[in-house]
Amino acid sequence: MKIHNFNAGPSILPKQVIKKSVKAVINYNQYGLSLLEISHRSKDFEKIMEKTTNLVKNLMNLNEDYVVLFLQGGATLQFTMVPYNLMKKEAAYLDTGIWANNAIEEAKKIGKVRILFSGRKKKYVYISKNYKIPDEVDYFHCTSNNTIVGTQMKIFPNTSVPIICDMSSDIFSRKLNFCKFGLIYASAQKNVSSAGMTIVIIKKDILIKTQRNIPSYLDYKIHIKNKSIFNTPNIFSIYTSMLTLEWIKNKGGISIIEKKNKEKSKLLYNEIDRNNLFENKIYKEDRSNMNVTFFLKKKNLKKKFDDMWKKENIIGLEGHRVLGGYRASIYNAIPLESVQVLIDVMKEFERIFS
Amino acid sequence: MKIHNFNAGPSILPKQVIKKSVKAVINYNQYGLSLLEISHRSKDFEKIMEKTTNLVKNLMNLNEDYVVLFLQGGATLQFTMVPYNLMKKEAAYLDTGIWANNAIEEAKKIGKVRILFSGRKKKYVYISKNYKIPDEVDYFHCTSNNTIVGTQMKIFPNTSVPIICDMSSDIFSRKLNFCKFGLIYASAQKNVSSAGMTIVIIKKDILIKTQRNIPSYLDYKIHIKNKSIFNTPNIFSIYTSMLTLEWIKNKGGISIIEKKNKEKSKLLYNEIDRNNLFENKIYKEDRSNMNVTFFLKKKNLKKKFDDMWKKENIIGLEGHRVLGGYRASIYNAIPLESVQVLIDVMKEFERIFS
Repeated sequence: MKIHNFNAGPSILPKQVIKKSVKAVINYNQYGLSLLEISHRSKDFEKIMEKTTNLVKNLMNLNEDYVVLFLQGGATLQFTMVPYNLMKKEAAYLDTGIWANNAIEEAKKIGKVRILFSGRKKKYVYISKNYKIPDEVDYFHCTSNNTIVGTQMKIFPNTSVPIICDMSSDIFSRKLNFCKFGLIYASAQKNVSSAGMTIVIIKKDILIKTQRNIPSYLDYKIHIKNKSIFNTPNIFSIYTSMLTLEWIKNKGGISIIEKKNKEKSKLLYNEIDRNNLFENKIYKEDRSNMNVTFFLKKKNLKKKFDDMWKKENIIGLEGHRVLGGYRASIYNAIPLESVQVLIDVMKEFERIFS
Repeated sequence: MKIHNFNAGPSILPKQVIKKSVKAVINYNQYGLSLLEISHRSKDFEKIMEKTTNLVKNLMNLNEDYVVLFLQGGATLQFTMVPYNLMKKEAAYLDTGIWANNAIEEAKKIGKVRILFSGRKKKYVYISKNYKIPDEVDYFHCTSNNTIVGTQMKIFPNTSVPIICDMSSDIFSRKLNFCKFGLIYASAQKNVSSAGMTIVIIKKDILIKTQRNIPSYLDYKIHIKNKSIFNTPNIFSIYTSMLTLEWIKNKGGISIIEKKNKEKSKLLYNEIDRNNLFENKIYKEDRSNMNVTFFLKKKNLKKKFDDMWKKENIIGLEGHRVLGGYRASIYNAIPLESVQVLIDVMKEFERIFS
């Protein structure tokens, strides 16, 4: 049975990645141990870390100014770690969605937050390009892709202030000038790996001396010094990340992946725009290529539509519980075929009920 | 090839647990999805959480006063979360080892710490029973098993103050009156599951109002309210925990496991005590049944001994890098057979080199 998995995260992973991760859980090294049984201080794991780090840097074209960490606690813990480590007095944030807002709320517990733009009143359907980053703030924080509402930043500002970006839902999905960023973080369970691991990429020179007595687990400097094994990391998820990054590399790198992602999202947005029964509420230039949200124009047809897509083995199409409607999360691993199946259902639905 | 895995953590897991976790990664639910691809808000995962929680409570004989959380960040993050959530002014700690000391250092960043006993000067080879817990402290913190040096608390105090216990290396290994404890935490990668998950068991009535503006991820109340899915948890590791707890239950519960653990450790300590070439430095009544440390009396025989045990497919026997010597971590999953192989090597080594 072919399943079309549009889950927003944890979500679809490449078949090969799953196969290889299974192989490693059964038998990882020359001793016949499971990946789950090897020490995080073993040579075996050292190699995994080195390979994964190199793949991240290689795919993103990052130079030696950057370090890559593999931590725990999701983007949520980064909402705290970022201001804890980088805020002296005040930082600037873009409020482009529910997760962006969560980041702001956590930062406010630690210091002063200046919100340069909030899309909240307009239900986050667009992202302003007309904001100015003050020179005096310690950093500028943004969310590259807003998973819930389905918007995506297409342009990142030029500024002398470090740019901190939550890329949880679109990391490795498109080519950017990653050297523009001071810090990038992303929880793994969308485009990268299994849940329970966060990739944090830091330009070393943005690390400052704060006057805070930072708890060790929240201190980037300690994790950097200990190469992500200050305490036992999520070995399984790091290994699975390595497999996904290899898969991306073998596909031809991020540019090729981006091309396919654009193709998939274009097809789906075209259908939503064309189809009389659906609408997407996002400003066209801000539409996400990862999370495509849409609504029925006639709410009373919900049951009919739900029955139809479920019958086609589509899963995870429900919109976020706060927003309702539908959301097709079309991450790197989702094949064009699945998007086509969804489009066909939408067409057929229109044919019957329009 | 039969491997004898004495790793201190991540460490050996029951074969069945690995087999079943593999099965779930290949195909978890009726859709044929991998465990790695299901949502943390799905019915499938809800069932896993419920089952795992019930197994924890059932095996430990905990009543409805307790909640079970599945978090990230290891024991290390708990070193911070405990004082953050539970310390008003001052807490009492036992300094029984390197990890206990780490917990103290993190607590000092947040409030006042009273150290009731420190084994540091005596290299942590014993645990005092002659300490008095002051009534006025907010909690009493101890480490039930000291993984590095190889000591274990056999008696826990009677006190009106909440007892907080780091059980990372001996949880589910022996029967205790768990209702004595206010909070128990344990990183999963020793006796329970794969790395990257921490079990936290809290007696709800110990949660107080502190004046702190706690970062959300560090706030027990938020995790309790959200049933451990405030953010995406480590699904794979939680599932694997469930499998291990089922394995324990099927063996007959913690009492049976404890009996086997005692049998294994007794055999090994007896051999160390008997053998002319080895010594254990821990006070007999404080010896750990989980991590058995020992040293060569003649250091120049190191290479000879190392060659011998390696030849017998023993791995992970090196002592902690701070301490040197040897450490056999004999967690629940290690079979008596592996302990016997080690003992045979020690006997043979004595026969040749004594």
